[in-house]
Amino acid sequence: MPWFSKPAYQPKGKHCYVTGGSSGLGKALCESLVKQGAHVTIVARDTKKGEQVVQELKAIASPNQIITFISADLVDPTSSADALTEATSLHNGQAPDYVFCCAGFSKPKFFIDSTPQEMKEGFDGVFWVSAYTVYAAIQQIVKQRRTGKIILVSSFCGYASFAGYSTYSPGKYALRGLADALRSEMILHNIDIHIFMPAGILSPGYEVENLTKPAITHKIEEADSPLAPEVSAKYLETGLRKGYYQITDNIATDLVRMRSNAGVPSNNLFMDSLYLFVSSFAVPIWRMMTDWEVRKAKKDVQKDLETVGFYSSSS
Amino acid sequence: MPWFSKPAYQPKGKHCYVTGGSSGLGKALCESLVKQGAHVTIVARDTKKGEQVVQELKAIASPNQIITFISADLVDPTSSADALTEATSLHNGQAPDYVFCCAGFSKPKFFIDSTPQEMKEGFDGVFWVSAYTVYAAIQQIVKQRRTGKIILVSSFCGYASFAGYSTYSPGKYALRGLADALRSEMILHNIDIHIFMPAGILSPGYEVENLTKPAITHKIEEADSPLAPEVSAKYLETGLRKGYYQITDNIATDLVRMRSNAGVPSNNLFMDSLYLFVSSFAVPIWRMMTDWEVRKAKKDVQKDLETVGFYSSSS
Repeated sequence: MPWFSKPAYQPKGKHCYVTGGSSGLGKALCESLVKQGAHVTIVARDTKKGEQVVQELKAIASPNQIITFISADLVDPTSSADALTEATSLHNGQAPDYVFCCAGFSKPKFFIDSTPQEMKEGFDGVFWVSAYTVYAAIQQIVKQRRTGKIILVSSFCGYASFAGYSTYSPGKYALRGLADALRSEMILHNIDIHIFMPAGILSPGYEVENLTKPAITHKIEEADSPLAPEVSAKYLETGLRKGYYQITDNIATDLVRMRSNAGVPSNNLFMDSLYLFVSSFAVPIWRMMTDWEVRKAKKDVQKDLETVGFYSSSS
Repeated sequence: MPWFSKPAYQPKGKHCYVTGGSSGLGKALCESLVKQGAHVTIVARDTKKGEQVVQELKAIASPNQIITFISADLVDPTSSADALTEATSLHNGQAPDYVFCCAGFSKPKFFIDSTPQEMKEGFDGVFWVSAYTVYAAIQQIVKQRRTGKIILVSSFCGYASFAGYSTYSPGKYALRGLADALRSEMILHNIDIHIFMPAGILSPGYEVENLTKPAITHKIEEADSPLAPEVSAKYLETGLRKGYYQITDNIATDLVRMRSNAGVPSNNLFMDSLYLFVSSFAVPIWRMMTDWEVRKAKKDVQKDLETVGFYSSSS
């Protein structure tokens, strides 16, 4: 992705491949893409929900738009590749133009309350659920000597992390690591890489997330205002239209971005310089306050562990 | 980890558990720890190499120092937990004091030349090889109501990434995500978290890494000067002695650190402010130069792919 000329974003007539397109951000994005005249392939696990969304999308589409659903377990590399091949076959064998990786979930929990299995599932459901699709898509696009866009969805928790996100942040950081490597490497193959870093989306996933979230994590996040999926999707598409590499949906994330992105191409040079100046003070202060909240909770957490007999259990 | 008071580092008499302790950074670290009077448990896969290092260490240790080797496949959660339990049983059932996660490997390659299996192995050998040990160690330390230190080893490539590191950086970023979450959460349990971000170590792993590294990756790194394992270990221990959370071994990494660490506790406030100021210009300039190198290589890489018939192969 270039530093001065920005890549164009124009969904009309494009084949958009959207993982996790049957709910939340993915679904909101599909609606917007269909309204703009794109062909949309939704990939998700739940066939019933997926087919229903296809019906909803067809109702707002023109008859020449191809809108389909493919059921796949995207944590598996073979299923991920097969789903992409199936979608390609519906479009004269041509690889998708835009690949949006929206599938994923979050289950925040204290590290000592998690099992190794939960750590692994948490990671797979954030990282591999997208990485295998990215791999299959890039193979196809390069082999066909086409251009394309890969859009990953990370999170505020892909820049910064704190108590409660030990099973979630590794995957979100890893997505950013993948995107940073590919942004550079895909210059070789004319593929644009983008990564969305939303702060919080009022999706079905967000409700599930809140069920396991420790009290201290809630407390740290209490000033946050999660966005409706439609609003979040709008931020994502605005960023794509402007050609941004790392796309955010609020100013707090922009401040953290400037202290976390290792100098990748800036969005708006003037605003980013301002954010960097403010973040020099604001971000460490936010960190100190967060650590302070954790420290305040120490006694309560230790009392809770005592109550459930954690300290006396076998190691 | 506190912002103003720094945790003490004093290996004498401590039980240090070192994964990957049979070669490279891990081995150099073990030598230093033994010289300082620590008890050392080495965990690695290769029994022959491990037993040999134990003999070398015993030759420089005093008779009361307990120095042992445990063979384990640390990518597996059960083996990781079993190895830790075995080490604990040699020390009256007490969890280790310091856990150094030095195991890992790097196999840089172009993304399109890698297989999904190589992506997964690359990730497991960087992230899970440490994460399962961290999990088992923290469970033990908290259950026994002891204090301790967990030291992760990431890389410069855990802050920033570029062409060639798509299968390596995700794991190194993920380790930083885990460390960032745990630095905050382990305030609750008095466990210090540290993460080492070395730029390059002249280890056996480094030689293996250079076998698969693409020419463009070599070119981007040509100004780097990898350090001898003993020198790198010295930087790590100096950082621990100073109580740093993120420990580096050169100034270039410090510049990138200040643009990548999301405002975690600073090392030296004056120097870090200076680094942040310089990095505001230097890091984006380095990025632009890196992108420029990749762009220059485009024609050659595409010609190579044509030669091997990549474009005509089935998608």
